[in-house]
Amino acid sequence: MKLYDFGQAPNPRRVRIFLAEKGIKVPTKQVDIGNLQHRNESFAAINPMQRLPTLVLDDGTAIAESMAICRYFEALYPAPPLFGRGPLDGALVEMWNRRAEFHLLAPVATVFQHLHPYMKRMVDPQVPAWGEANKPRIFEFLQFLDSELGGRPYIAGEQFTVADITALAAVDFMKQSKLVIPDDLANVRRWRDAVSARPSAAA
Amino acid sequence: MKLYDFGQAPNPRRVRIFLAEKGIKVPTKQVDIGNLQHRNESFAAINPMQRLPTLVLDDGTAIAESMAICRYFEALYPAPPLFGRGPLDGALVEMWNRRAEFHLLAPVATVFQHLHPYMKRMVDPQVPAWGEANKPRIFEFLQFLDSELGGRPYIAGEQFTVADITALAAVDFMKQSKLVIPDDLANVRRWRDAVSARPSAAA
Repeated sequence: MKLYDFGQAPNPRRVRIFLAEKGIKVPTKQVDIGNLQHRNESFAAINPMQRLPTLVLDDGTAIAESMAICRYFEALYPAPPLFGRGPLDGALVEMWNRRAEFHLLAPVATVFQHLHPYMKRMVDPQVPAWGEANKPRIFEFLQFLDSELGGRPYIAGEQFTVADITALAAVDFMKQSKLVIPDDLANVRRWRDAVSARPSAAA
Repeated sequence: MKLYDFGQAPNPRRVRIFLAEKGIKVPTKQVDIGNLQHRNESFAAINPMQRLPTLVLDDGTAIAESMAICRYFEALYPAPPLFGRGPLDGALVEMWNRRAEFHLLAPVATVFQHLHPYMKRMVDPQVPAWGEANKPRIFEFLQFLDSELGGRPYIAGEQFTVADITALAAVDFMKQSKLVIPDDLANVRRWRDAVSARPSAAA
């Protein structure tokens, strides 16, 4: 199998951290989004949505979407469980992972895509008002997360899960979006330091 | 348990269709988004993100996010499987469900939220340029879906899955967004007619 990857984007990083937590090594091929390589015909033939990451199996089957790739590996290699343990815990991990995606990763990426000059040739049209509208959503969610993290070590509960991976990829990408975690969110900062200290965070 | 529901919104409908396909009956309580009931303190105490649907278990645990609720029921009642059968099929269902969410349901909802006068008091700020920017994305994805559906009956393969539920909720919500499936997308129309004929589509 081969993982089509791009080092600087948050979604491919989610998969890399996930694989590192599982101790799985997968050969990777870099597709340079900066040079629009993901829009080449050869890559569009692999993933018509022209997105990274994409996992291609030995029989040529392509699995796109970060969470689909992670769930594939979770099903093949259940330990350690990163999508929860049992029906209820699994549902709560899914809930928190999606909250981290929709209220943190997506708005952080939107700020970058719609406000950063570098993205002008890639995002057509850039809508700066939409980028600006996403900024307060990020800080509202971080505030909510800070109150939640006052009562538990990880985003979805007592265990490190895929929700922590999504949230870490998001808060680390805030730098590219020129955003900073407010100083007074002590629980978010404690959590960020803890998950950043895991070897997988280097992925 | 109790499912906090709202009849006219696409996400609660995804859960209702899912439950109907499983043959599961859950008591529901309507929360009128039109009257901003989802922003009342009593509902915000249940789901701080103030979103529907939300499932509350008998012990008070709240599961928010449509797909978290669906996965909870999938784990409790595996038959018929709606999230795929085995690691690879499960990954492909997740891939197609997310494609249907991000490239169809999300942009259709965005058009409604950012362009419909009814939504002005709920979406702050409405960014009409962002609504307009989403329209071509919808038709590009429907075109792609039409070519894919030339080779198989359902969105993710030979079986009806949660990806069909997401895509049906999305195309039916196009009416509220004042959008119509183009006449020449014969495969999408055939698929839509087939999934609409299932009893669950009335949910």
